[in-house]
Amino acid sequence: MKRYAELAPSQRTIMTPGPVEVDPRVLRALSYPILGQFDPEFTSYMNDTMEMLRSLFRTTNQWAFPVDGTSRSGIEAVLTSLIEPGDKVLIPIYGRFGHLLYEIAERVGAEVAYIEKEWGTVFDPEEVISAIHKEKPALVLMVHGETSTGRMQPLAEIGKACRELGILFVVDAVATIGGVPVLTDEWCMDAVIGGTQKCLSVPSGMAPITYNAIAAAKINARKTIERGLRTAADIDAYNASVRPPVIRSNYFDLAQLQDYWSPARLNHHTEMTSMLYALREGLRLVLEEGLEERFARHRLNESALVAGLEAMGLSLYGDPNCKLPVVTCITIPEGVDGESVRSLLLNMFGIEIASSFGSLKGKIWRIGTMGYSCRQQNVLQVLGALEAVLIRHGARVHTGAGLQAALDVYDQT
Amino acid sequence: MKRYAELAPSQRTIMTPGPVEVDPRVLRALSYPILGQFDPEFTSYMNDTMEMLRSLFRTTNQWAFPVDGTSRSGIEAVLTSLIEPGDKVLIPIYGRFGHLLYEIAERVGAEVAYIEKEWGTVFDPEEVISAIHKEKPALVLMVHGETSTGRMQPLAEIGKACRELGILFVVDAVATIGGVPVLTDEWCMDAVIGGTQKCLSVPSGMAPITYNAIAAAKINARKTIERGLRTAADIDAYNASVRPPVIRSNYFDLAQLQDYWSPARLNHHTEMTSMLYALREGLRLVLEEGLEERFARHRLNESALVAGLEAMGLSLYGDPNCKLPVVTCITIPEGVDGESVRSLLLNMFGIEIASSFGSLKGKIWRIGTMGYSCRQQNVLQVLGALEAVLIRHGARVHTGAGLQAALDVYDQT
Repeated sequence: MKRYAELAPSQRTIMTPGPVEVDPRVLRALSYPILGQFDPEFTSYMNDTMEMLRSLFRTTNQWAFPVDGTSRSGIEAVLTSLIEPGDKVLIPIYGRFGHLLYEIAERVGAEVAYIEKEWGTVFDPEEVISAIHKEKPALVLMVHGETSTGRMQPLAEIGKACRELGILFVVDAVATIGGVPVLTDEWCMDAVIGGTQKCLSVPSGMAPITYNAIAAAKINARKTIERGLRTAADIDAYNASVRPPVIRSNYFDLAQLQDYWSPARLNHHTEMTSMLYALREGLRLVLEEGLEERFARHRLNESALVAGLEAMGLSLYGDPNCKLPVVTCITIPEGVDGESVRSLLLNMFGIEIASSFGSLKGKIWRIGTMGYSCRQQNVLQVLGALEAVLIRHGARVHTGAGLQAALDVYDQT
Repeated sequence: MKRYAELAPSQRTIMTPGPVEVDPRVLRALSYPILGQFDPEFTSYMNDTMEMLRSLFRTTNQWAFPVDGTSRSGIEAVLTSLIEPGDKVLIPIYGRFGHLLYEIAERVGAEVAYIEKEWGTVFDPEEVISAIHKEKPALVLMVHGETSTGRMQPLAEIGKACRELGILFVVDAVATIGGVPVLTDEWCMDAVIGGTQKCLSVPSGMAPITYNAIAAAKINARKTIERGLRTAADIDAYNASVRPPVIRSNYFDLAQLQDYWSPARLNHHTEMTSMLYALREGLRLVLEEGLEERFARHRLNESALVAGLEAMGLSLYGDPNCKLPVVTCITIPEGVDGESVRSLLLNMFGIEIASSFGSLKGKIWRIGTMGYSCRQQNVLQVLGALEAVLIRHGARVHTGAGLQAALDVYDQT
């Protein structure tokens, strides 16, 4: 029998758009002993988590809980529960994750209309609103922060337009939640999906979502009770009713998940104990820091990073007017092998930065300043290391200038 | 702003059929720092995990990896990827989790035929085989160990019959994997789903699966590349092909997950870093103990528990010829409030045992002897505490006899 070495991961400085470093207090929470899923101590942690998610999402929605899976599990749970096969959806796309919304919506049976914007920019809200008037969809699906291109879409006007027209507005805020304001109620978003492994700095594994009473009504109309848990009365009531098509997934059936996350505690899956510990602790740390203070920290470190990169002589990618504050994209200088730079950063300095997808593959690097990774020492480390590695690759840089510019930003605060 | 207390879960003795206690070495692994998902150190842990899963499932299958979600996510991933809408499936049901297979199969579009056996028993393999001949399904779906009733279904003959008839045989081994033999190749199982939070003693959050080349061929026929990752050549090839219906889920699309778990490392979700650490460490501990040694440990502790319960004067529920070795069901004595007993066990002794579902709710208790919870001190603790709590509830028990009988079993080894 082959013997496997004990797990011993290296310490990394992770400056990608996720997964990012995790606060040691969250890592410690992961190591606590297991509680049963219906143990009153555990269900009180579940309730705490719901409360804290409402604060995070800036909402008074009843429903705010994690789906047990990675971020895209939250997207799929919302889309498969909200979209009835044949429902028309409009998806304005400005990067890879807009395409993912298209992919998922199509698979769950939506009739998809889309508009697409050149990567590196976002939509003028009026463009989206006029497409809404033209297409008359039942739902509009949009990405708030597109990590593939480092852009952020203004949402408030689009949300208002949807609400006036009675159209559901569903937003992927995986990259932004916990790093920049996501105002669920104020922006009239009917359902929002967050991510854990980015600005919340909790390991990948849960997808916090929230949705309002309008969305819940649509979901509840499709509600069934799981086979094996149904009583005779449930079956009679079901057979007597006229309903829209059943939700095509059991795992992602939000009507059933609601019953598990409510005082009814109707058995569904076995809640992920350790991940729930981590999420609760991560949310506690976010609220302890304060949302506004946290957003300010993200802006400060972004400013220092951008100042440093520009002083070094590097060019940023994309329209600066819609830059996503927590991801900075750099055009790879002519003649420099982007992957070789990333390898040297990882292997010699233990620092990870990201490449991108599709048409941007090999064209840009992406540096995240998210959550626990978003701190002064990390920004300074990445600037210093990047300069050294670029020199090593024969690139022309203004030696010494990057770190001085970043230090200047920190000195001014 | 409300302040939330630091996480501080109590220490419990968890004797349910899952989630169960977790080895401190696995809890420690959960607390290690994050690696990026494409960091070579991390992908080597992914590869180790696949290798170890093949040993666990006793298979030479190429595909053995975890789905990122709780156990039922693995079931849904296998069913939604393998079952094309309209495919006929046969589900022999002998407890709640057979109904769950029905629920999921129906939602993913299967035409479901089923046979049902009284709870507390299992099928004679011949009964299933004759139903197969009658129904002529494309797939047969079955539960190996039914935790709701504490029964275990013999599978080898059914698997052989399916293989001869060219029918896919899919097995839910969530409750048995790591606790009793699950012989994927020998029993001709085309796809098997395991669970983490039971006999593997890893927290809930991943669903290890394996499937063979026959199943992979069916899945690969439905393969697409995710929107946003497709090249022009991919799109041309796709448009030129005639294919069965696309898999209705992106999250559970095993054809895409395969590409993520293969050297291609085609981006899909962001792998759950900490849960993967836990699974790798948990599998390492299972293989270090040895599968046969581990199964023997489960049998020994079951024997001691059963001897103790019977000596105390309690009656076991269900047909003893098909008892699931890792779950012991007890008929709640006349006049005793089962939930009150469970509460006192939890609140006074910190011990958790389970109730059951549906028609068995309030009729039986279920005690798990699974994974790290399956050890002598836990068995002795639960017997001692149960006696005290039963006396407290006015039940007649043979005082002192339970622990002596259990100690006798341990003395004989």
